[in-house]
Amino acid sequence: MADVDLRDIGRRALEAGRRLALLSSEARGAALGEIARRLDAVGEDLWEANRADIADARAAGVSAPLVDRATLNAKKVAGMAQGVREVAALPDPLGETFDGRTLPNGLRIAKVRVPLGVLGVIFESRPNVAIDIGALAIKTGNAVIMRGGKESLRTNVALVELVRAACEAHGLPADAVQYIASPDRTLVPALLGMDDVIDLIIPRGGPGLQALVKEHAKMPVIYGGIGVCHLFVDETADLERAIPVIHNAKTQAPSVCNALDTVLVHRTVAAEFLPKMAAALTACGVQIRGDAASLAALEGAAGVDAGLVSPAGPEDYGQEFLGLVLSTKVVDTLDEAIAHIARYSTQHSDGILTNDYARAQRFVNEVNSSAVFVNASTRFNDGGQFGLGAEVAISTQKLHARGPVGAQALTTYKWVVQGDWHVRA
Amino acid sequence: MADVDLRDIGRRALEAGRRLALLSSEARGAALGEIARRLDAVGEDLWEANRADIADARAAGVSAPLVDRATLNAKKVAGMAQGVREVAALPDPLGETFDGRTLPNGLRIAKVRVPLGVLGVIFESRPNVAIDIGALAIKTGNAVIMRGGKESLRTNVALVELVRAACEAHGLPADAVQYIASPDRTLVPALLGMDDVIDLIIPRGGPGLQALVKEHAKMPVIYGGIGVCHLFVDETADLERAIPVIHNAKTQAPSVCNALDTVLVHRTVAAEFLPKMAAALTACGVQIRGDAASLAALEGAAGVDAGLVSPAGPEDYGQEFLGLVLSTKVVDTLDEAIAHIARYSTQHSDGILTNDYARAQRFVNEVNSSAVFVNASTRFNDGGQFGLGAEVAISTQKLHARGPVGAQALTTYKWVVQGDWHVRA
Repeated sequence: MADVDLRDIGRRALEAGRRLALLSSEARGAALGEIARRLDAVGEDLWEANRADIADARAAGVSAPLVDRATLNAKKVAGMAQGVREVAALPDPLGETFDGRTLPNGLRIAKVRVPLGVLGVIFESRPNVAIDIGALAIKTGNAVIMRGGKESLRTNVALVELVRAACEAHGLPADAVQYIASPDRTLVPALLGMDDVIDLIIPRGGPGLQALVKEHAKMPVIYGGIGVCHLFVDETADLERAIPVIHNAKTQAPSVCNALDTVLVHRTVAAEFLPKMAAALTACGVQIRGDAASLAALEGAAGVDAGLVSPAGPEDYGQEFLGLVLSTKVVDTLDEAIAHIARYSTQHSDGILTNDYARAQRFVNEVNSSAVFVNASTRFNDGGQFGLGAEVAISTQKLHARGPVGAQALTTYKWVVQGDWHVRA
Repeated sequence: MADVDLRDIGRRALEAGRRLALLSSEARGAALGEIARRLDAVGEDLWEANRADIADARAAGVSAPLVDRATLNAKKVAGMAQGVREVAALPDPLGETFDGRTLPNGLRIAKVRVPLGVLGVIFESRPNVAIDIGALAIKTGNAVIMRGGKESLRTNVALVELVRAACEAHGLPADAVQYIASPDRTLVPALLGMDDVIDLIIPRGGPGLQALVKEHAKMPVIYGGIGVCHLFVDETADLERAIPVIHNAKTQAPSVCNALDTVLVHRTVAAEFLPKMAAALTACGVQIRGDAASLAALEGAAGVDAGLVSPAGPEDYGQEFLGLVLSTKVVDTLDEAIAHIARYSTQHSDGILTNDYARAQRFVNEVNSSAVFVNASTRFNDGGQFGLGAEVAISTQKLHARGPVGAQALTTYKWVVQGDWHVRA
């Protein structure tokens, strides 16, 4: 690997960001179309880069699921191209003028939506992220500096080169999309200190990466992705209809952040509901870790694979399982459910299953998560599902963007003030 | 001073914030009215606390302007009460429902505006900030933990006690407004590490405080207040009308962040404009620090106090003077003006004075400051002037709130998703 000069990367990103921000929607759209076409026709260099990465990862003993995620194939590349076309089809967020008015003194003020400037994105594994982020950056007029996982270094570099070439072909500065092509770990803290260059850092990865960013980042950050998600089965829930909702929330995509982790059940319905729920879930291989009351309800229940049922330890509440494991707890009241969620939730996705209007209202008012659900699967907390288009992350913090972080969240605004030689009185 | 247990303060703030968020607009409004009434009738305890603070500050050799800012009088307290009444009169930001729609699958989604949770505000000197921030926190349903300057410790404590008593009188948790009543400097870094409690830190102070926050804060921050502000006098400017705008921007309140620091003048009009401008400004005691071309234009000019004119050093560009000093520079083109601003501005408030439509457009498009002005004083970048009501700061960062940070910027939203037992396909 060549030596990496982060300051030089930063200078070029600032300059490219300034130029990109002034280019038309048409020019940015043309570059996005070009990226998709080039992905449709990727050449041997990409496959070779990916094979070399995978060979190295296997030799280094990287786990099979990680190797799987890092391995490209024609279908994954076609998915990337499709993703770019979807980003291209989104409305252009830039230039929107809003909150405009004429003040009593005649001064005309309005907010105009503009790019943030320079994004920094640090991600683990999956190389499609390099394309997704590159496309979203171009769409929103931002320059971006990326750093991906070392398992995908050559692949990411090849993909970023494709994006840069597509930019150049349509008059966009190639340096709008840059990649830190070195496995040197000290570059990450150095990047996180460049608050004079980078307007927003987005860490896409696990708790280790987030802690590193929290420790070193001097600029604003959007954290996301860690979801300890709850559903509360109220005593008035339609128990038959509750089961598919829980089944969907737990099993449709168990490794993602909006997958269900803990079911709270009202004591009144625990004996009736838990065996039915456990039968449906254990049939799909879901392990259930219950409190004493849950285990009592499940004891000897028909259709439940008892081998998958075990006592919950304290660590089973407040844990994101990212797999086919669910913790359960019997509660006496709605208040107890709300208090449990307040204590253990990561404020990602939490819901109530109920037919009681007042309890639904109380839950919605008192549970403060990025998305609060009534009678729906937590899996809906997603940019695509909410109609926002591609998302960069699901934010679990409260500033700027909460929940799905779409293209608009990668923009800011400036106040434009037009006067007639106005002075302040 | 009693020992301070920050973790205990944090626990109580979290709990109080949860309770406050559920109280009605009426209850919060009643507490605000009570604060204003209690300020109208402040007792000897406040004056005594302030006298003790001032005596200590004088004994410690604190500078006269700082002592002035820390000294309360009846007029300042009446101003605080008036400020609280203005906050009370603002529309309640909480509960606003927006971006609502029904998805094709029938799921109903909407954003609902909610408090951030717990604010942390670190401020220097002026004790009115304790009242302003307390009132804005109550208005927006947030708990707040404050830490003020040591010159005002007793005064701030007395003011916060008044706010707490007003809260209690109307059923609000007193712990929604807490003050760190200790001059121990190690408490600030400790507070900045409490990202499990505090959702947003707002540092109100100079570069030293901002650097400390940048070093230690683990939670989101809104920085603001540092404004290196520019006006560019284009060759087509109405030179007569430009002078009052520059005069206003420089002298109306020279110590604040939106005051003008640098005037850039197009070379074509420099010889005509600079002497007139300098005559008007030096008559009010403004020092002018010019580049060589400016000094040449001012050499021997009628009406200019030559004793106030001196050469600009490199440090005079990019400096926030916060006083009656102005730097000037002659530029050859609009591009050179824009490039100077890109290099030296803090992206706070920058403007152009021109009668050329196309140049006004280019300036507005290419200068990326929180407020960009055409033919108006930079002094208008202010929450009150923009009709947003009281402001916490003028943000110079791009995330969440840019420019004046009003009540709405102290809120966030949650997605409320209402289904009919929906599962994701």
